Amino acid sequence: MASLDRVCTLRSVNPSIWALRGHSLGVLLDRARDIRRKLAQGVEKPFQVVTDCQAGDLQAAGSPSCTFLRQVLAACTYPELLGTGELPTDVCQRARCILQELDGSSIGSYNLTFLEGPLSRSVAGFLERRDGGLPCSPLDVMPCGPTCKAIADILNMLMDGEALLKTGVLLPAPGPPVLAEAVALVGGVELRYQLDEERSWALDVDEVERALKEGRARCRPKVLCVVNPGNPTGQVLSRETMEGVILLAARERLLLLADEAYQDLVFGPGCRFLSFRRVLLELGPPLAHSLQLISFASLSSGLAAECGLRAGFFDIVNVDRTLLSGLYNQLTGMSVPPSLGLVAQRALSDPPGPQDPSYLRFAQEKQAVLRALAEKARLTEGVFNQAPGIRCNPVQGAVYSFPRISLPARALERAQALGLDPDFFFCQCLLEETGILVGPGCSFGQAPGTYHLRLSLAPPLKTLSRALRAVTLFYSSFVEENS
Amino acid sequence: MASLDRVCTLRSVNPSIWALRGHSLGVLLDRARDIRRKLAQGVEKPFQVVTDCQAGDLQAAGSPSCTFLRQVLAACTYPELLGTGELPTDVCQRARCILQELDGSSIGSYNLTFLEGPLSRSVAGFLERRDGGLPCSPLDVMPCGPTCKAIADILNMLMDGEALLKTGVLLPAPGPPVLAEAVALVGGVELRYQLDEERSWALDVDEVERALKEGRARCRPKVLCVVNPGNPTGQVLSRETMEGVILLAARERLLLLADEAYQDLVFGPGCRFLSFRRVLLELGPPLAHSLQLISFASLSSGLAAECGLRAGFFDIVNVDRTLLSGLYNQLTGMSVPPSLGLVAQRALSDPPGPQDPSYLRFAQEKQAVLRALAEKARLTEGVFNQAPGIRCNPVQGAVYSFPRISLPARALERAQALGLDPDFFFCQCLLEETGILVGPGCSFGQAPGTYHLRLSLAPPLKTLSRALRAVTLFYSSFVEENS
Repeated sequence: MASLDRVCTLRSVNPSIWALRGHSLGVLLDRARDIRRKLAQGVEKPFQVVTDCQAGDLQAAGSPSCTFLRQVLAACTYPELLGTGELPTDVCQRARCILQELDGSSIGSYNLTFLEGPLSRSVAGFLERRDGGLPCSPLDVMPCGPTCKAIADILNMLMDGEALLKTGVLLPAPGPPVLAEAVALVGGVELRYQLDEERSWALDVDEVERALKEGRARCRPKVLCVVNPGNPTGQVLSRETMEGVILLAARERLLLLADEAYQDLVFGPGCRFLSFRRVLLELGPPLAHSLQLISFASLSSGLAAECGLRAGFFDIVNVDRTLLSGLYNQLTGMSVPPSLGLVAQRALSDPPGPQDPSYLRFAQEKQAVLRALAEKARLTEGVFNQAPGIRCNPVQGAVYSFPRISLPARALERAQALGLDPDFFFCQCLLEETGILVGPGCSFGQAPGTYHLRLSLAPPLKTLSRALRAVTLFYSSFVEENS
Repeated sequence: MASLDRVCTLRSVNPSIWALRGHSLGVLLDRARDIRRKLAQGVEKPFQVVTDCQAGDLQAAGSPSCTFLRQVLAACTYPELLGTGELPTDVCQRARCILQELDGSSIGSYNLTFLEGPLSRSVAGFLERRDGGLPCSPLDVMPCGPTCKAIADILNMLMDGEALLKTGVLLPAPGPPVLAEAVALVGGVELRYQLDEERSWALDVDEVERALKEGRARCRPKVLCVVNPGNPTGQVLSRETMEGVILLAARERLLLLADEAYQDLVFGPGCRFLSFRRVLLELGPPLAHSLQLISFASLSSGLAAECGLRAGFFDIVNVDRTLLSGLYNQLTGMSVPPSLGLVAQRALSDPPGPQDPSYLRFAQEKQAVLRALAEKARLTEGVFNQAPGIRCNPVQGAVYSFPRISLPARALERAQALGLDPDFFFCQCLLEETGILVGPGCSFGQAPGTYHLRLSLAPPLKTLSRALRAVTLFYSSFVEENS
């Protein structure tokens, strides 16, 4: 009886938050957790372990960390290490310098002064070097916590609960689920533009325009989100496409929001990451003085792959500085990023140079990360494109592949009978029978009538290789069974 | 011209977020930052430095960190340290154990499995020991990021945008501004109950009931927030009061939300922290089986005072577990706490024992923190209670004092003419003329016609002592000038 009186129950929960729970990928993650628990309890399954082939968390999958970065972090955490001779001299010098910059010389403080001063200056310097010398003011740089949270915070600023029309946000399909979650969380309307699978997931400006026009019938579109390199597509945008996107956003008065989290991880032959900031500024006035652009980078998705540090930064062009910094100052308690994430960005925005003792190891580790991803991307494309019924576009960057699978009519019927998306149904069967966890295309957005899987490049080569073969094998028997 | 077309401008920003900007304390913080910048540029002022006497950030003010904790964090960040002999043996053992528990043995991963497994078990064990052996299930423990953010997330779950009546949340006045911000941010209605200044800021259950009845006329009250030890009052609740609060919450079907962030920092003579969890469970059924309770602890406000790690935890009683864990699993990208915050909680929930090499230093550092706070609390009370027109209640815990100041009629008139709260006006004059930054009572909530200041115990003793004398001196000349 008592429970009927309760305030906080599954039945009473905020409907707009509850809606996020239905997410297919989330359901699979919960199920994988259940199965792991059962395996640990000794329950018999047709497999011994759950193999996570969907998470982009490189270090969870065993990838090594960046030694220089970890040494600087350790020294800033426990400065007595500086006197021990256990760390390279350039690391000690760097850590001493950062400690002097920290509020109270400690990672234990909120470090807002560090964030606004030395860190923002150092990130601005990094952006200038990255973008061919185009000047960047530290006042246009804002270190933040998790990028997806910062995106949600910024989208929230653009909402207006009182307005008749809700705020629309254009998102790529396929795209990262967390962007759609952010839009839902702040009460916006998601407007999807399809990436062109036939042209290696290229962004088609006409298609964005179509989605925009359609959206204007039901909301007020204010934001165009672009993800480059693409998640889950692995596509890297060309300068030509980016210029088209900029022209469209300017013409249609949209804020351009560039999710460039995976900017470090570009390895496709002939591919190169160009930032929207650079392409916009190189277009010159009037566009460079008018289009509003906010671009995001992340420690989780960068070369160091430090998901656990929960930090990133964004930079703004033609956006009122007081608007962003004012907002962050106000809600300090909630939005101040973790200090060690700030320290890591300070260290990485000014990496070791050829004259530094740490340089060689730093450069080798960096190359090893990119080489391993490139190798796993080629392997993934190779295995999938040899399997009848599966087709995988080239993966040029980021850490995912997004192969398309054909599903026979009977599989579609069975899924429909269960009220499930067909590719979710496939992923569920795959998980139950092989223990392999991959993401269903329906969680990322895809053209109607097409079905996909998202796989990660994070598992070690051997694990991935085994898993890829197991997935294709399972796929062919699944097709046979359901034909 | 172009700027009129922009999507993201000061004029267009989400009104419910913009409303948070007006916060008096925030305005003072912005002004203090301005003054610092001007001093650095060589602008002449009647003082050389801005002295921050309002922030509770102990380490920013120079307090030392906990050596054991920092050693464990450094070793987990850069495990090669474990072989060097630079760290005590128990630290190495602990770090090795935690590294084994981490996902991929790394602080670089999201560490959700670590969070749900070993960390939750270890925190549950800590709660059992803290609460006299009352059993605690790891499933009822949820590590989180910044406590204020977790509170906002939970409040958000209780909102319902579709409902006719908004959700009401009872908050103490005075209370931490961040709670009111959290309520505003999720679109709730703040209902204030006054703490009783005449009885050392005691919580009066009848007054809560009054605020509740009044609130029912304009919203649907669902949550009763209690802050213990109090911020900014420093008051520690008695078991009797806590039982009264529990009975009221149960009778009125309110979720009890206990902000126990400062639980470690209790130093008033004869004072002892009791958790609401303990008092509720010791009351036994039916209350112990029905009242819904969520309690919060924080690394920032604990003995280690690690604001920069951005982590804490909450525990639930009589709340559906799937509700909370389900929510957190879903929004992983946004809500996963930083790994080093998790590691710190793992280390501190199982601190060194008398047999460990680190024990002595750990215990001494702990005592030093409490002794320093107690000394600064006595100093603050002493100085203020000797100043005519100022009265300060005993500070029993946390890191703030909240003295009341009488303001002469002319000061009130001048403030009114400027459209300012009188104590904000005082704080502004104090900052401009002495460089000392203290918080205005109006930012925390206070009885109408009363005026207060919030001062922190964080500055070093000498700095605080000088500042206290400067504030009382300025106060007496301010009163004279405005009489």
